[in-house]
Amino acid sequence: MTNHEFYMDLALQNARAMKGQTDPNPLVGSVIVNDNRVVGIGTHLRAGEPHAEIHALRMAGDKAHGGTIYVTLEPCSHHGRTGPCAEAIVAAGIKKVVIATLDPNPIVAGNGVKILKQAGIDVIVGILEKVAIQMNEVFNKFIVSKKPFITMKAGTTLDGKVATRTFNSKWITSEQSRLDVHQLRSENMGILVGINTVIKDDPALTSRTPNGRNPIRIILDSKLRIPMDAQVVIDKAAETWVFTTENYDREKRKALEDAGISVFVTEGAESVDPNEVVSLLGEKSVSSVLLEGGGNIHASFLENRLVDKAVLYFAPKLIGGKEAPTFLEGTGFELMKDAVELTDTDIEKIGDDFKFVGYPIY
Amino acid sequence: MTNHEFYMDLALQNARAMKGQTDPNPLVGSVIVNDNRVVGIGTHLRAGEPHAEIHALRMAGDKAHGGTIYVTLEPCSHHGRTGPCAEAIVAAGIKKVVIATLDPNPIVAGNGVKILKQAGIDVIVGILEKVAIQMNEVFNKFIVSKKPFITMKAGTTLDGKVATRTFNSKWITSEQSRLDVHQLRSENMGILVGINTVIKDDPALTSRTPNGRNPIRIILDSKLRIPMDAQVVIDKAAETWVFTTENYDREKRKALEDAGISVFVTEGAESVDPNEVVSLLGEKSVSSVLLEGGGNIHASFLENRLVDKAVLYFAPKLIGGKEAPTFLEGTGFELMKDAVELTDTDIEKIGDDFKFVGYPIY
Repeated sequence: MTNHEFYMDLALQNARAMKGQTDPNPLVGSVIVNDNRVVGIGTHLRAGEPHAEIHALRMAGDKAHGGTIYVTLEPCSHHGRTGPCAEAIVAAGIKKVVIATLDPNPIVAGNGVKILKQAGIDVIVGILEKVAIQMNEVFNKFIVSKKPFITMKAGTTLDGKVATRTFNSKWITSEQSRLDVHQLRSENMGILVGINTVIKDDPALTSRTPNGRNPIRIILDSKLRIPMDAQVVIDKAAETWVFTTENYDREKRKALEDAGISVFVTEGAESVDPNEVVSLLGEKSVSSVLLEGGGNIHASFLENRLVDKAVLYFAPKLIGGKEAPTFLEGTGFELMKDAVELTDTDIEKIGDDFKFVGYPIY
Repeated sequence: MTNHEFYMDLALQNARAMKGQTDPNPLVGSVIVNDNRVVGIGTHLRAGEPHAEIHALRMAGDKAHGGTIYVTLEPCSHHGRTGPCAEAIVAAGIKKVVIATLDPNPIVAGNGVKILKQAGIDVIVGILEKVAIQMNEVFNKFIVSKKPFITMKAGTTLDGKVATRTFNSKWITSEQSRLDVHQLRSENMGILVGINTVIKDDPALTSRTPNGRNPIRIILDSKLRIPMDAQVVIDKAAETWVFTTENYDREKRKALEDAGISVFVTEGAESVDPNEVVSLLGEKSVSSVLLEGGGNIHASFLENRLVDKAVLYFAPKLIGGKEAPTFLEGTGFELMKDAVELTDTDIEKIGDDFKFVGYPIY
């Protein structure tokens, strides 16, 4: 690890620790070094509050002069809710700026670097770039596409089953994996399931982590079959949004709305189009969604190329059964050459299970 | 790593390198150390030839006197095809014997250690024991039960599918995984598939590794539906044994036997009982079998508690489809609490795929 990597790693650590509290802003961390000593650290805490560089500059005070600032994302160039950080860095007399990655936000995108260079500051871009990009994968997608970053999650046996042939599913994965899922939920703005999952499992879909925020519960329910006594209806710990078709049950809609549930009617009469759901969620500033099944919902999102990331918890168990449901059903692709491949794959042991992470390539 | 572990590791490496050439004997390696120098190494090369300790003692010559011998398996005490190694060790003037694991063979089982101790030799047992036991997992089972050690192998997508809904399966896993399968085949004495796999995929079931030995091809075929032009019938690179029921096609049996295929008739009229197959294979000294599908064969062996080990190659791909076959079908267990759990699990990256290894607990 070089010096640059060492300080950038510290900046990344401080950025990452804020996961879940900066939306819709990205995670950003910053470190200022002068004369081989850290003189300031900063992180972006919350949208509307100062950027990471500003906190670090304040901590450094006069010692920023002649120093090097490390920042995980290109300093901003625009007058948003806070002033442009690039100008603050120039004003503080910083000599060198080390950046992990340029800002994908089209309003910034290289303009921050331009301001710094015009002021005669030495700028280095690309230190631990891949890590920094992945850390803000949600922000990077949303800022460009205005559509949520979608993570497909499943807890499965080694043979791909998410329940036995009798739909028994408690429990497939270990307690440690299930805790990890609660963490995953708290990091997403929305959590989406199909109506069959609500009817079969009646989950609360809340996040049971310390200080975990509860994502919006999003249910795809083409005919409004959702039971009025479902946990997602009764439990008020989180909002519930139901997406239905023009073929919905009119009386049920009124009852649901009276119970505080938001109902969105999408075009078409048969099934809810996932593309329309995703666009609508984007318009409502929902930047991240966790897909939690079942297999038909997963297949419909994957076939529409809407899944950005897959997180799979494999329990070291075998269940078998031709009729036992797998986490990816629907029609499926016809030929192996059409299969969706995943890249940047990683697998790690979590309790007795294995947690797989990968990114579909379309 | 202690000194003992260092030398035992060397002995294990030399033992393991003989995999596939010592059957029905176990893999055994040995190292002799005197005055902090290795003075002899040995490995068991082939059944009927000297044991590892004898090779090491010959290499050491006089330098064995007063030395320490490391051996991965308890030295033998019986007059088999070669003399008892325990006596040879005593005769060579060895001072200390370090053993990884006792011999599960009931003819030896502690008797080797007894001879050594009676001669006043210092004996240590249990250095890298787990590794040594796992290395001879096939031998350990067969010597006690007289039934083959059965490895279930599958190449699967992340969603457990072994083909698309149209039964397209070329290729799921990467070339590196497929090479690894050929290695696995060459390490097994038999390779077993169901008749549907023969009809659908027409595999040759041979091992394409340098100097790979070809396992016996074992086909379960209740009515002798096997096509006379199937590769396992035409290709003479390996033996083919077909297990059928009393309900078999008489003319087909004659044609198969004329083509050099062995046909075994098991009891029952509907399907071939895997327990009977396994007992018969054991009687014929087949000590290891690789199960290569399909999903019904795997399920039938697993439900009969006959699978000793699972080796699963996960390709980072998603295929979906409610009708697409998974590697474990059949009826399946009814409740999650009945699922077969696997222990001593391990996962490693192999090319773009992940290779999972685990041992079912019944």
